[in-house]
Amino acid sequence: MANGNVPVLTSDALLNHWQGHRRLTRRMIDAFPDDKLFTYSLGGMRTFGALALEMLTMGVPMVRGVITNEWEQNRSRDARPRAEVLREWDEATKQINELWPQIPAERFHETIKAFGAYDGKTYDLLMYVIDNEIHHRGQGYVYLRTLGIEPPPFYER
Amino acid sequence: MANGNVPVLTSDALLNHWQGHRRLTRRMIDAFPDDKLFTYSLGGMRTFGALALEMLTMGVPMVRGVITNEWEQNRSRDARPRAEVLREWDEATKQINELWPQIPAERFHETIKAFGAYDGKTYDLLMYVIDNEIHHRGQGYVYLRTLGIEPPPFYER
Repeated sequence: MANGNVPVLTSDALLNHWQGHRRLTRRMIDAFPDDKLFTYSLGGMRTFGALALEMLTMGVPMVRGVITNEWEQNRSRDARPRAEVLREWDEATKQINELWPQIPAERFHETIKAFGAYDGKTYDLLMYVIDNEIHHRGQGYVYLRTLGIEPPPFYER
Repeated sequence: MANGNVPVLTSDALLNHWQGHRRLTRRMIDAFPDDKLFTYSLGGMRTFGALALEMLTMGVPMVRGVITNEWEQNRSRDARPRAEVLREWDEATKQINELWPQIPAERFHETIKAFGAYDGKTYDLLMYVIDNEIHHRGQGYVYLRTLGIEPPPFYER
């Protein structure tokens, strides 16, 4: 393809892209009433609190695993106050910023087995974590709307 | 940053990533009952049919605009049979594959004004189109679940 090998996203750009999405997801968590975060859902799906904790089990552990090939498996997904979820979110933000520059440059295009289970190119696995966050956050938008709450604008990062 | 300027996604990889998402979105459109695609919604939000047409107004027109700086504005968003939406989706798939290699290599990192309105780096604007698709498709998952329909798996592309 004419422009096939042209670099489009650098490491810096992908990190900034992700942290922009993570800022929006933080605003979503904060927009949920504390008593709805782990109780409200639609169609038998998971609560937004459970989804936010899933994002936390995927974010830092993925980046750390990409660097160390050690995969954290047993992070708790028990319900907790919204303030605690936000505290963990902010901690993850810092850790991702600290860990990301430690990813060896060649690693992004190597094939790895994430969490001992998911084979793929590192950049694809990192994209999957970001896409999973966008996907489930979209689900959260419907939860908020049906609760009569205006969600934060999607285009603001 | 240590790995800051390392290329993570090439043009090819970003196109493949997007077309993988577009295959999943096609399965979502196909999973909706024909009589629900433009009638069913939750929380006062748009129908999944309307969202799919929004994706079509953003996809090919964005890529063509990136190449030509001509921005298509007035594509119809009227309700139509599911088969017609799928036909348009498949046509867009071909057009995106044909147009993408024509994006000049240097354009990805240039600042442009998409649709005469949205300033940004080209790669960020292309990512926005993909993210918007993932976001609204996540909304569609809730619609399908509340209709009692099992959506296609998120991890299959």
